Amino acid sequence: MKLTFLGTGAAVPTKYRSHPSVALKFDGEIFLFDCGENTQRQIIFTDVSPMKINNIFISHLHGDHILGIPGLLQSIAFQGRKKPLNIYGPPETKEMIKNMLKIGYHSIDYPINIHEASIESPEMIIASSNNSNGNNYEVYTFPVKHSVPSISYLFKQIKKPQMDIKKAETLGIEIGPDLKKLKDGFSIQLKNGKVITPKDVTIPPKKGYCIGYSGDTIPIDEFGKFLKYHGCNVLIHEATFDSSMQKNAVDTMHSTILDALDILEKSGARTLIATHISARYDDIMSFERDIVKFKEKNPEIEILIAEDFLEYVLK
Amino acid sequence: MKLTFLGTGAAVPTKYRSHPSVALKFDGEIFLFDCGENTQRQIIFTDVSPMKINNIFISHLHGDHILGIPGLLQSIAFQGRKKPLNIYGPPETKEMIKNMLKIGYHSIDYPINIHEASIESPEMIIASSNNSNGNNYEVYTFPVKHSVPSISYLFKQIKKPQMDIKKAETLGIEIGPDLKKLKDGFSIQLKNGKVITPKDVTIPPKKGYCIGYSGDTIPIDEFGKFLKYHGCNVLIHEATFDSSMQKNAVDTMHSTILDALDILEKSGARTLIATHISARYDDIMSFERDIVKFKEKNPEIEILIAEDFLEYVLK
Repeated sequence: MKLTFLGTGAAVPTKYRSHPSVALKFDGEIFLFDCGENTQRQIIFTDVSPMKINNIFISHLHGDHILGIPGLLQSIAFQGRKKPLNIYGPPETKEMIKNMLKIGYHSIDYPINIHEASIESPEMIIASSNNSNGNNYEVYTFPVKHSVPSISYLFKQIKKPQMDIKKAETLGIEIGPDLKKLKDGFSIQLKNGKVITPKDVTIPPKKGYCIGYSGDTIPIDEFGKFLKYHGCNVLIHEATFDSSMQKNAVDTMHSTILDALDILEKSGARTLIATHISARYDDIMSFERDIVKFKEKNPEIEILIAEDFLEYVLK
Repeated sequence: MKLTFLGTGAAVPTKYRSHPSVALKFDGEIFLFDCGENTQRQIIFTDVSPMKINNIFISHLHGDHILGIPGLLQSIAFQGRKKPLNIYGPPETKEMIKNMLKIGYHSIDYPINIHEASIESPEMIIASSNNSNGNNYEVYTFPVKHSVPSISYLFKQIKKPQMDIKKAETLGIEIGPDLKKLKDGFSIQLKNGKVITPKDVTIPPKKGYCIGYSGDTIPIDEFGKFLKYHGCNVLIHEATFDSSMQKNAVDTMHSTILDALDILEKSGARTLIATHISARYDDIMSFERDIVKFKEKNPEIEILIAEDFLEYVLK
C-alpha cells in the first residue's frame, strides 16, 4: 500500500503545489481521493497508472477538488479504457459528472457508476467482499463541515483469517485439496467422519491498515472518534492555514495545522499527513514551528506536511 | 507585443509539455489562444497576468484545448474579477461554456460574452475601433479542417496614421490645440479661412504586426493565402507529427512539421512557431532534421519548435 500526493495545494495552485489529489495504490488498483485540475499531468511524474484507477472519491464540489475529472475521464478513454469506473461524492455529484461529460467532443464509452453519499450520517460505500485474494477493503464516508456539502473518507484494509497449518496438521489434515477447501471457506469431512469447519483451522486475521481522508472541513471531533473506532493508522487531514490564521480558517471553514493535530489525537492514528496548504505559504516554516510542541510531547507520532509527489508507504 | 507559450503539447500532456495555450500580450491586455487543462497553473510560471485576460479564442472543442477554461474562469472570479470576459469559438461554444459554468459551486459574477464564429467562411470577429491609444487591432477567424469543427485565428495590429509635423508646420499649424484636434480626427479652419483635414497632415500608418494561429488542422492552402492577404508576420501552426508520421497526420487530421512549413511558405510570414507536439516525442531531433533543407533554402526565415514557457517578442 502506498499513498502518492499528486497535488497538495488549496484553492489557488502555486509553482510547487498543484490542486488537491491523493492516489492510494492497493492490491494493483489505484484509489483516487479528489481530482483537482492537472491531476492527469501530475500522474505522469509518478508511478501511478491512470488506467488502474477504478474508484474516485470526491470530498466536495469545489473546483479545486474536481476540475481534473473531465480531463482524466477523457484521457483514459483515449488510452482505450473499457472497464467501469466508480465515482463517489456528495449529493449533486451525478449532475456534475453529467455536465462534465457534456464538455467538448470525446468518446468515453466505458460505464461510469456514480454513488452520492449522505451528508447526514456515515455510510459504508464499499463493502468488503468474500472472494478477494486476501486483500479486501471497505470504504466509509463521514459527513464533515465546509462551506458546501462535504464528506470525508475512510479506507480500511480487511485481512482474511490466516490458516493455522499446525492446528490443521494436529487435526489430521494434510496440505492438499482438503486444506484448500477450508482456505476457500468450505467445511470438509475427514475419513473418520469428523466435520472440520474453516473456523477450526484459522487464527483471527491481523488488523489491516486504515486511512482517513478529511477533505475540506473545520475540525470535527466526531470525525476523530469515528476514525478511532475503525482503528485509523494514517490520517490525511487538510491544514490550509498555520495557527496564526485561525480566524481565516473559521471564516472559510477550513482547518489549521493545530486543528489537524487535534483531530489526529482524537483519532488515535500514529501518522498525520497534513495537506491542502494555502497558496500564501512559500515554505512550511510556520507549520513546522506550530508542530514543535506536539512533537516534543508525542515523539512516537509521525507528522508530515505533504508536498507534491510525496510518497508514503504503509508497511 | 509578446507571445508566451503556456502549453505546447497535444492530446496527452508530458513531463515537458502541458496542454495547448498561447498568451499574446498586447497593449496591457492578454489575448489567450486555446486554454488546455492546467493553463491557470502554467501562467504562474510566467509574467502573464490572468486578470488581464479579456479575450479567449478557442480553436475547437476537444478537451486538450478547452479543459483549462472552468478553472481559469473560477480562479479569476476568486481573485475578484468584475470586468466582462469575451470568449470566441466554433459553433456549440455557448453550450459548452454553459455546461462548464454548471460544474461545482463557485461565484462567477462577471459577464461572459460568447461569440460563435462561422465554420463556413472567414469572419472579422473584432473590428478595429477608432478611439484607441494608437494600438488598435482586428481579429479574424478562418475555418480550417480537423476531425471536429475547427477555426483558426488572425490577430492584426492596426496602427493609426502618423502626424506629419513638418507638413503641418508648412501649412502654418503650430503645435497646440489645432494640431491636437487634427490628431483626434477633426478638421480645423485656419485664420486665413483654409480648411485643413486630418488627411492633409498625416502620413500613411506603418504596418502593424499580424499573427496567425492555426489551431488543430490538416494543412489548408487557403489559410496560407488568407494569412498572406493580411500580411502575416508570425505563423503559429500546429505540427503534431514529424514527417515520418505523415499517414498518422492524415488519419487524425493533423499537420506534420513539413505541412506547417508549406503553409508558412504560402503565408509569406517570416517566422514559424510550430506547436502542439505529440506526446510520442521526447525531444525535437526529428523535427530539427525535417527543417534542415528548408532552412538552407530560406535562411531568412525563422523557425522555432515551441516549448512550454517560450517567450517570443515581436519588435
